[in-house]
Amino acid sequence: MNTFGQLLRLTTFGESHGSAIGGVLDGFPAGIAIDEDFIQYELQRRKPGQSRLTTSRKEDDEVELLSGVFEGKSTGCPIGFIVRNRNQHSKDYENMRELFRPSHADYTYHAKYGVRDYRGGGRSSARETIARMVGGALAKLLLRALGVQITAWTRQVGHLVLDTDYHQLDFSEIERNPVRCADAQMAEKMAALIMEVKQEGDTIGGVIECVVQGVPAGWGDPAFGKLHARLGAAMLSINAVKGFEYGLGFAGSSWRGSEQNDAFLPGFTTATNHSGGIQGGISNGQDIVFRVAFKPVATILQPQSTINLAGEATTLDARGRHDACVLPRAVPIVEAMAALTLADAYLAQRLSRFD
Amino acid sequence: MNTFGQLLRLTTFGESHGSAIGGVLDGFPAGIAIDEDFIQYELQRRKPGQSRLTTSRKEDDEVELLSGVFEGKSTGCPIGFIVRNRNQHSKDYENMRELFRPSHADYTYHAKYGVRDYRGGGRSSARETIARMVGGALAKLLLRALGVQITAWTRQVGHLVLDTDYHQLDFSEIERNPVRCADAQMAEKMAALIMEVKQEGDTIGGVIECVVQGVPAGWGDPAFGKLHARLGAAMLSINAVKGFEYGLGFAGSSWRGSEQNDAFLPGFTTATNHSGGIQGGISNGQDIVFRVAFKPVATILQPQSTINLAGEATTLDARGRHDACVLPRAVPIVEAMAALTLADAYLAQRLSRFD
Amino acid sequence: MNTFGQLLRLTTFGESHGSAIGGVLDGFPAGIAIDEDFIQYELQRRKPGQSRLTTSRKEDDEVELLSGVFEGKSTGCPIGFIVRNRNQHSKDYENMRELFRPSHADYTYHAKYGVRDYRGGGRSSARETIARMVGGALAKLLLRALGVQITAWTRQVGHLVLDTDYHQLDFSEIERNPVRCADAQMAEKMAALIMEVKQEGDTIGGVIECVVQGVPAGWGDPAFGKLHARLGAAMLSINAVKGFEYGLGFAGSSWRGSEQNDAFLPGFTTATNHSGGIQGGISNGQDIVFRVAFKPVATILQPQSTINLAGEATTLDARGRHDACVLPRAVPIVEAMAALTLADAYLAQRLSRFD
Amino acid sequence: MNTFGQLLRLTTFGESHGSAIGGVLDGFPAGIAIDEDFIQYELQRRKPGQSRLTTSRKEDDEVELLSGVFEGKSTGCPIGFIVRNRNQHSKDYENMRELFRPSHADYTYHAKYGVRDYRGGGRSSARETIARMVGGALAKLLLRALGVQITAWTRQVGHLVLDTDYHQLDFSEIERNPVRCADAQMAEKMAALIMEVKQEGDTIGGVIECVVQGVPAGWGDPAFGKLHARLGAAMLSINAVKGFEYGLGFAGSSWRGSEQNDAFLPGFTTATNHSGGIQGGISNGQDIVFRVAFKPVATILQPQSTINLAGEATTLDARGRHDACVLPRAVPIVEAMAALTLADAYLAQRLSRFD
Repeated sequence: MNTFGQLLRLTTFGESHGSAIGGVLDGFPAGIAIDEDFIQYELQRRKPGQSRLTTSRKEDDEVELLSGVFEGKSTGCPIGFIVRNRNQHSKDYENMRELFRPSHADYTYHAKYGVRDYRGGGRSSARETIARMVGGALAKLLLRALGVQITAWTRQVGHLVLDTDYHQLDFSEIERNPVRCADAQMAEKMAALIMEVKQEGDTIGGVIECVVQGVPAGWGDPAFGKLHARLGAAMLSINAVKGFEYGLGFAGSSWRGSEQNDAFLPGFTTATNHSGGIQGGISNGQDIVFRVAFKPVATILQPQSTINLAGEATTLDARGRHDACVLPRAVPIVEAMAALTLADAYLAQRLSRFD
Repeated sequence: MNTFGQLLRLTTFGESHGSAIGGVLDGFPAGIAIDEDFIQYELQRRKPGQSRLTTSRKEDDEVELLSGVFEGKSTGCPIGFIVRNRNQHSKDYENMRELFRPSHADYTYHAKYGVRDYRGGGRSSARETIARMVGGALAKLLLRALGVQITAWTRQVGHLVLDTDYHQLDFSEIERNPVRCADAQMAEKMAALIMEVKQEGDTIGGVIECVVQGVPAGWGDPAFGKLHARLGAAMLSINAVKGFEYGLGFAGSSWRGSEQNDAFLPGFTTATNHSGGIQGGISNGQDIVFRVAFKPVATILQPQSTINLAGEATTLDARGRHDACVLPRAVPIVEAMAALTLADAYLAQRLSRFD
Repeated sequence: MNTFGQLLRLTTFGESHGSAIGGVLDGFPAGIAIDEDFIQYELQRRKPGQSRLTTSRKEDDEVELLSGVFEGKSTGCPIGFIVRNRNQHSKDYENMRELFRPSHADYTYHAKYGVRDYRGGGRSSARETIARMVGGALAKLLLRALGVQITAWTRQVGHLVLDTDYHQLDFSEIERNPVRCADAQMAEKMAALIMEVKQEGDTIGGVIECVVQGVPAGWGDPAFGKLHARLGAAMLSINAVKGFEYGLGFAGSSWRGSEQNDAFLPGFTTATNHSGGIQGGISNGQDIVFRVAFKPVATILQPQSTINLAGEATTLDARGRHDACVLPRAVPIVEAMAALTLADAYLAQRLSRFD
Repeated sequence: MNTFGQLLRLTTFGESHGSAIGGVLDGFPAGIAIDEDFIQYELQRRKPGQSRLTTSRKEDDEVELLSGVFEGKSTGCPIGFIVRNRNQHSKDYENMRELFRPSHADYTYHAKYGVRDYRGGGRSSARETIARMVGGALAKLLLRALGVQITAWTRQVGHLVLDTDYHQLDFSEIERNPVRCADAQMAEKMAALIMEVKQEGDTIGGVIECVVQGVPAGWGDPAFGKLHARLGAAMLSINAVKGFEYGLGFAGSSWRGSEQNDAFLPGFTTATNHSGGIQGGISNGQDIVFRVAFKPVATILQPQSTINLAGEATTLDARGRHDACVLPRAVPIVEAMAALTLADAYLAQRLSRFD
């Protein structure tokens, strides 16, 4: 199933070393101004080679919108798009035809499909997220028109944690440093750690925090379509994600109900926001706050024990150009998936009442 | 959207104080022996009033299968079922018509729908999980025939954490104690804590761990249908859940790639299982391991500040019979949702290859 | 797949001789007054035993709404419902365990599922349409609030055709005669034919015409969701339906474009309505007009050649109480499926524009 | 909703005068040999300009498969593809910005979306079927490997009807004449009629018949997923289609049950095939036979009364290059949609039993 969303549906296709990554966004309402520069800008944010912290691969990712836009506005028809793959070094992956990289998807794709495009991870490559960036940028254009703002930042890299409450953070700092951390000093420490890990040929994980501001009460569904369940599925579908929590999350497991409950105040606001902006699966008008855990990238530049197609022991010496830490480039992907989820919930909300 | 699953689809309906909770399980293959006693047994595990730890409400939850079963076997046609609601004390909720309980879904339902069945939480009540238990029990019958075993237990209550590796645990202990903890001594401590919290009229949260054994390599989909994304959405759709992680989860964010990667061993197994049995969204044949964080129940028997329908400040004195800690009763619900997710992934796997 | 609709989704379950027929209507907006008497009235229209023309089976089909309605209004939550099966004569079908009735679904279910509830056709019985009647009645309540009116009538029985343009018909006649023909004289002829066929132990088919008035321009989708494609799928899913056409339909195949085109008139109406109210798959504000062809019922009270489970030749002597012509009872079913389709299209239309 | 199918899902995009027509085929199993020449051949069959009977527009429709194929085989990942639009004469349509062509989708799109790509019909253009041809060709590759053969031909043009039973037809004749009629003599008459109509600046409709051979018993679903309901929806989603029938269809409405029933014969075949190969919505192993009615093309080269955006009366003088009869080019489109429907039903059938 390569489709995300119920009413606003993004269907993606493409492999890392194929002709193109692309997708179709269906269900996007007519009449929204399509700012193509903004879409391209969002793609740039995800792009490799933005700083010495990220992979040195140069990917000139240019999006071509193929349909669904006329005279600068959405027409209500599906928006098809492609981003050509260029600058691949497929030969770097020739040795992967025969063996399985540890903690990658090589073995599981082999087990599932028999046939496998082993070059650069094929469909399991994080290049697939290019299509999410385009879909997410379009969703952001819709949400922007509704006054909804999505902001993510690197909260943790390895043991380094920025645990400042987000109200105390200066969001304009995020795009000023290559780590996309919301604090300049912490960003420097994180950058240093990433460089250190990189020089060891190793990799490191972390946590991204995201806040969504301006969502009115009423978005999200009961039962299986709870807004946080949809957000969780969205985030967990991003490569390397291992965990999702919202509001107090795991930490709240040791709180008492009397501490955790958010008292209502006149004006339909709450005294605290331990709920993370969602109650019973539906937004309550407060900021939506969640965190996403990323494991360290599986490709390390150190020898690793593994097996080949025949199941025999062998050693992997990975080459290729890889990120030592995906967090900086994952920040816009988290935002994109949040945007797709929220725009979908907005459309669903338009159907909830008869009046 | 009250339907869960892509190929095996559970559609649920029902409110806490309506006539019945029920559902339809569609896509269940023909020819599976339907053990109705097992379904009823699973319902009993979720039932209130099993011990002094849980609510004293007596719910005689008897399932009636209405279709899709003939002479003891599934027919491939949809399995409709209902569980009648009995023993409700709707009057306990009369005061909730006019006010919003903090950190409940009262306000958000009101904001979304205008019309609201306020009795016992209506559709947002955890009684809705009865339908999940029935669907999950049916899914377990399918999985059992495939040799797949799902086991969940209470890993944490408040600050009390059982962090023993599950290979060291005796799973047969789980159903022997009212907390459904996999360790007898820890279970006693947890029970004492829950009683203490209950006597304060307060509530407490915790974490459930779940392991799925016997899943072969190949279940799960790329992109948006990653097995852990589906499991995450399933768990986050359970009432009171605030977080989900699999494998190393959040803790792994501070590990290096060289530490976290699972080396492959001859025979297509792995030296470690930090991946939690899923790589690239697809099962790799190792045990699937995940954890689910629950907040403390929002209904506390202490006065709380809140507002009424007009947005004016007021005080809530909750009555009713409630759990001080949902974890013990949530254990089978976690298993049920895991079963539905995995049975769905099994069916998808049957379509992955042409041969 | 036992679910109909995209946004308004009816999931049905139940077999002819099982405990109950039922369903879940999900996506029904909150705030619509639920007139339970109307739902029961619609069920009565479908019921057997209304006249000597139809089967003498007495089915006291009483619907019980189990959820989704509170204080007389829809709540936006799924509406679950059941209708108990009573008065079945399962023994009438005992001989069908071993053989396949010609032109029934016995053999195909056997081939598909292996397991088969042979009593009264099981899931393939027209009793399944009870759930469609309930869902359709709810959809009619929604459409009525929008000023949309659906009217179907028996246009043809055997060789007897009422080919009067519907503008010349008196719709109030339809419910006055047992054939549900919109012309009293033709109704008498049709009734006589049906009685004649019945006395021969034979059956006869016919055509139902349906007109939908009050649909504004804009309902329906491009490409695969064309309004007439959805209507066609809805009608073809009714037991015994063999054909669907709208507007000029098959007859228009021999017209010239210059004759068939509907000239636009000032005020956004058209001079003619050969399009049947739908252009490019989207309603144009004119009446929607379509016709549905039904084959004669497959159960005849004459000996027929057939085979048993082993594939050996045998003879079937059908018993049981059956309709000699389904058209009279199919009229409300056609309306119900049209209502579900149109209510779904209405919801989709609410999402087409951003403003 | 621009997606067709449940398990094998084709999502299409693209407007007549946009950059490209394209789509994504998701759910296609791994391991199927992808014959790109065959896909291109199928595209050629749909292409304009094949003979003097069809439009003189030259469309060099070259498909580019962008993903999902590796070393000549499907990988189980989504197959994205595009066909560039070239040779459009957008200026031919400049006058359509302001007015609505009778019996086209101009007005209804305007009413639905507000924004409208008026050039060449935009999304409502039959050029959209290019994506169906590609998806259908892929589905044919799957079906061919299963021994399923789909053959459609022009059965009627205007009043000229080829009503020979298909067993008496020579299918190899179909591709030998420009009308795609299965009889050479009738093809000549039809061609003459089309030329005559074309010289008048008029258009004409007709009927296509399609037979599917080699489908085993068991494909199709009960209730809403009946195989003929899916086929009907597929056909009715093709531009200009006004009717669908299978087996005896409308004609059978005047037959008696005793005449229409198909007696079973030893060996699980039937003496006749009035059912058209489908009973109870599920294939019975006999040939599947259906017919599709097409209206005459709405674009005629004669002055027509219409209105402009303001609702004022005006006259349309259509220009552009158009088909006088779509039947010849629609034959492969009917086959393509049948192939997508049947391949989807095949996948569903793989899930019906547990064994």
